[in-house]
Amino acid sequence: MSELKDLTYGIVGLGIMGGSIAKAIRGNVLDIAGARGKILACDISTQSLELAEKGGVIDESFTPDNVDAMLKSCDLVYVCLYPHATLDFVKLHKDAFKSGAIVTDISGVKRLLAEDVKQYLRSDVDFVIGHPMAGGAKEGYVNSNGAYFEGRNYILIPQPWNKAGSIELMKNLIASMGFTRIVETDYHRHDHKIAFTSQLCHVIASALVESAEDESITEFGGGSFEDLTRIAMINAPLWTELFLLDKEELLGHIENFEKQLDFVKQKIKQDDAAGLEKYLTDVRKRRMNMGTFVSKDK
Amino acid sequence: MSELKDLTYGIVGLGIMGGSIAKAIRGNVLDIAGARGKILACDISTQSLELAEKGGVIDESFTPDNVDAMLKSCDLVYVCLYPHATLDFVKLHKDAFKSGAIVTDISGVKRLLAEDVKQYLRSDVDFVIGHPMAGGAKEGYVNSNGAYFEGRNYILIPQPWNKAGSIELMKNLIASMGFTRIVETDYHRHDHKIAFTSQLCHVIASALVESAEDESITEFGGGSFEDLTRIAMINAPLWTELFLLDKEELLGHIENFEKQLDFVKQKIKQDDAAGLEKYLTDVRKRRMNMGTFVSKDK
Repeated sequence: MSELKDLTYGIVGLGIMGGSIAKAIRGNVLDIAGARGKILACDISTQSLELAEKGGVIDESFTPDNVDAMLKSCDLVYVCLYPHATLDFVKLHKDAFKSGAIVTDISGVKRLLAEDVKQYLRSDVDFVIGHPMAGGAKEGYVNSNGAYFEGRNYILIPQPWNKAGSIELMKNLIASMGFTRIVETDYHRHDHKIAFTSQLCHVIASALVESAEDESITEFGGGSFEDLTRIAMINAPLWTELFLLDKEELLGHIENFEKQLDFVKQKIKQDDAAGLEKYLTDVRKRRMNMGTFVSKDK
Repeated sequence: MSELKDLTYGIVGLGIMGGSIAKAIRGNVLDIAGARGKILACDISTQSLELAEKGGVIDESFTPDNVDAMLKSCDLVYVCLYPHATLDFVKLHKDAFKSGAIVTDISGVKRLLAEDVKQYLRSDVDFVIGHPMAGGAKEGYVNSNGAYFEGRNYILIPQPWNKAGSIELMKNLIASMGFTRIVETDYHRHDHKIAFTSQLCHVIASALVESAEDESITEFGGGSFEDLTRIAMINAPLWTELFLLDKEELLGHIENFEKQLDFVKQKIKQDDAAGLEKYLTDVRKRRMNMGTFVSKDK
């Protein structure tokens, strides 16, 4: 297998994710003595590119107009775009990839790629479907961070067309970037689980914000409302796309959640102290068993 | 007004809240040169009392059996118990308070105290109803922390019977302990707002935990589910009491939240991308305007 430190990486989309990936590779993979690897990046924002180049994070900048010149020298291409845009990118630039290149993505819903990307792939290019499980209220290259992925989960969705070497290389790279757990699964299970841990949570946080009587509600805040709604500082176009792409799974989870919420509501309505205490005791036990997203805590 | 540094403080219940209050007073009020003040504490756990005494946090320990001996020398008594237990404590020990003492509480629902405490008060003892807005998944004296209140809100609910001097003294003490915002309101408004920022959030977090298919769900976690359910590591008896004490307000908020959730669900069902994006854009704007619970951030 090629050595990670000698590869040329291409980042397509230098936002919070692409920027953090570039910084994590620079800081953990290319900082080794004798490393010959490079990081190239393409973005619509020349400001982000300049910042990254001046900061020594990337070696060379490209724009969507000349990204083909970048792709022809990249051993590994990280497409850090929204789901539909990721597919469109592969479709549009399929002839530009270097022979033997690995292309990978970061998008939050996987059916689209798993079902459609193959038809746009050349036989000498491999596409590894993956999902780095990190995110937050902040956006853009200026908020990217080389330590963004420490302790986080990464989900890989291997496909029948993948070469064993590509998956192996991705796993090494992922571990180098700071992720502590790699979960391999199929795209059905990914989209089902992520609709719960990610999309349902964003739906709930959004509905909770809109339930507030006014914006001065945080005068009465003690941290709970703030914690539950931090993710509601949401990227509206991205999450609209994710909600609708994973619609069936998400609707199922919303309905399960509504049933649980109604169950608690009925217990409160009925003044059922014993039932509530039993329910909350189970909640506490379950939540403690769940631990955090950091596998080393488990 | 008496100087805070010269008072004798009595903490009833040395858990996470009582312990943090004792440490905040020790570190910010009694650390002044020439301070003659003392901190006495009562708890059912002799272990917590020993730890606090050895750590120099409290000067003398009492148990429920001999707490009257403590109360007779306290200028300010912090009752850090559950709501019903707070009222019961005042009722049971009303004759033991020092003449001129201020008694205050920390409980999360205020109607009970505002309506009932007066009948148990001697005319030479003042009771200030208050709510330090801090909390978390951790419990017990071992998790208490003198910096627990930094940047937090404190709600005061002044009553017709309160002496102006008592409120003034409490405000000085609260600011000394690290709180950055004091909100004064009546108990109706307190219980209405807190049912939203605190109790509704705990109901939602609990229902979300119970909606999970299994406890290994955090394998697919990226932080959102974890953030929304951290408060579900809940103290079941306390929250059962709070939910039922504030039942009417809480049920109203649950129903408003259910309507908002249904609104988002319908938009997803209808594939209404434009409507969803508009909704999420408003959510983001509202949430950003809300800021955090730290007034200095505003």
